[in-house]
Amino acid sequence: MTTPHPLDQATTLVSTGERQATGRTHPAYANMAGPFGGATAATLLRAVLEDPACIGDPIALTVNFTGAIADGEFEVSWIEKRTGRTVQHWTVDLVQNGKVAATASVVCARRTETWEHRPAVMPDAPPAAEVAPLDLGARLGWLQRYVFRFVEGDPRFGEAAPETPLSARTLCWLSDLPERTLDFLSLAALSDAFIVRIIQVRGVRGPMGTITLTTYFHADAETLAANGARPILGVADSRVFNRGFADQEASLWSQDGVLLATSVQASFYRD
Amino acid sequence: MTTPHPLDQATTLVSTGERQATGRTHPAYANMAGPFGGATAATLLRAVLEDPACIGDPIALTVNFTGAIADGEFEVSWIEKRTGRTVQHWTVDLVQNGKVAATASVVCARRTETWEHRPAVMPDAPPAAEVAPLDLGARLGWLQRYVFRFVEGDPRFGEAAPETPLSARTLCWLSDLPERTLDFLSLAALSDAFIVRIIQVRGVRGPMGTITLTTYFHADAETLAANGARPILGVADSRVFNRGFADQEASLWSQDGVLLATSVQASFYRD
Repeated sequence: MTTPHPLDQATTLVSTGERQATGRTHPAYANMAGPFGGATAATLLRAVLEDPACIGDPIALTVNFTGAIADGEFEVSWIEKRTGRTVQHWTVDLVQNGKVAATASVVCARRTETWEHRPAVMPDAPPAAEVAPLDLGARLGWLQRYVFRFVEGDPRFGEAAPETPLSARTLCWLSDLPERTLDFLSLAALSDAFIVRIIQVRGVRGPMGTITLTTYFHADAETLAANGARPILGVADSRVFNRGFADQEASLWSQDGVLLATSVQASFYRD
Repeated sequence: MTTPHPLDQATTLVSTGERQATGRTHPAYANMAGPFGGATAATLLRAVLEDPACIGDPIALTVNFTGAIADGEFEVSWIEKRTGRTVQHWTVDLVQNGKVAATASVVCARRTETWEHRPAVMPDAPPAAEVAPLDLGARLGWLQRYVFRFVEGDPRFGEAAPETPLSARTLCWLSDLPERTLDFLSLAALSDAFIVRIIQVRGVRGPMGTITLTTYFHADAETLAANGARPILGVADSRVFNRGFADQEASLWSQDGVLLATSVQASFYRD
């Protein structure tokens, strides 16, 4: 008997009734306060994907982080809002101690064979094997769940804040640790695996955190499985830090150069 | 007495109870089937912004277009999911004939004075006054609600489909017609005012439509008002058209070079 991967443990839901279940935060994905947002996103997505009525692959996932999640149990409930011939819409709530701590909307679809066109080009980067993993020491739980091979824009943990803002761009090979074959759950989590941009641009200062995350999935399950456990290439950047709120855009590419997902997020920050 | 702007008419909600109201599609924003998605987005945003409990400016808006909206009345209801000190989360449903035709999540905030940084640079474009408006003839209602001054990537309505895919990029000055001082409602609608990318890339072929739209607002109400009714610069592009679904990313800039909003959307298409 093998122990499930920590991501599968962290996203496990135990049914408590019709489209409701109990989950539990997992220390392997601990963040500064509560769990890594990517693990929460994967948990809410899993609730939908494992529903017997789910019609197919996820196309879009929006997660709103409405409040801090404390270590321990939480309740998840989900609603099938509307199902068409090929597109299906769901909403999900995560409640802890009677308060909504996250909401999500999930769009799933039966993908069909159509004309295909992929104008986007993968950024240049040396092969993952030629990039040294970042030594994170004994940092936060979730940072230990990924091998980060930074090509550009590594976070400056523990360094003095820069005098002038640094670039918000990061280019990085990412893979699960321990290894795990890529699927929609891990891709959803990976779309949040870029350290909040303001840390890189300005150094660690006041409170900060993601408040909403939207991920679009641009590949089917077979394409993700074909990547196996090989690192995927991520690129993230920000365009604006204004009056307490910042953006982030990211894209994730397979070893074979396929754009697997794009995502945007908004985060808050204080001085 | 002056007649309200068509956008204000199209987004008017008449209260029918606690956080529920009736709206009505407006012929001025008619699209191929039902209303222009931007008008729907603005309507759902307006429900939240006019709620007495709303704490401040919108930061993020996600609208899922779950089904076709027929011309006529619809019901809108909204829920305050969680309110913190500075950030507030809402969800909204639009129901017509007993079916959910759209859902939304809205993040609002009390913006605070913080360090500010805007690394993004406005794309180069000639001044709006030097770009001729596109003559749209007697096209769909909503296309008549905007002055489109295309610098690059104008739609090829009525032309033969290109033999090889064209660029998905559009650069365009946009303004409301009739004129209207910019606010969050019009900015939400403008974030959906780029014609579905596949038309530009491939020509008009099978059915197509936006299924989910996320807009981030990067400026406060005063900054929007300062732009007045002057055109704003929009740039849109797509990265992937795969097995029935495509993406779009867009950004909208003020006359003064301020990034006002960024948005992403996913659309379906059939051959």
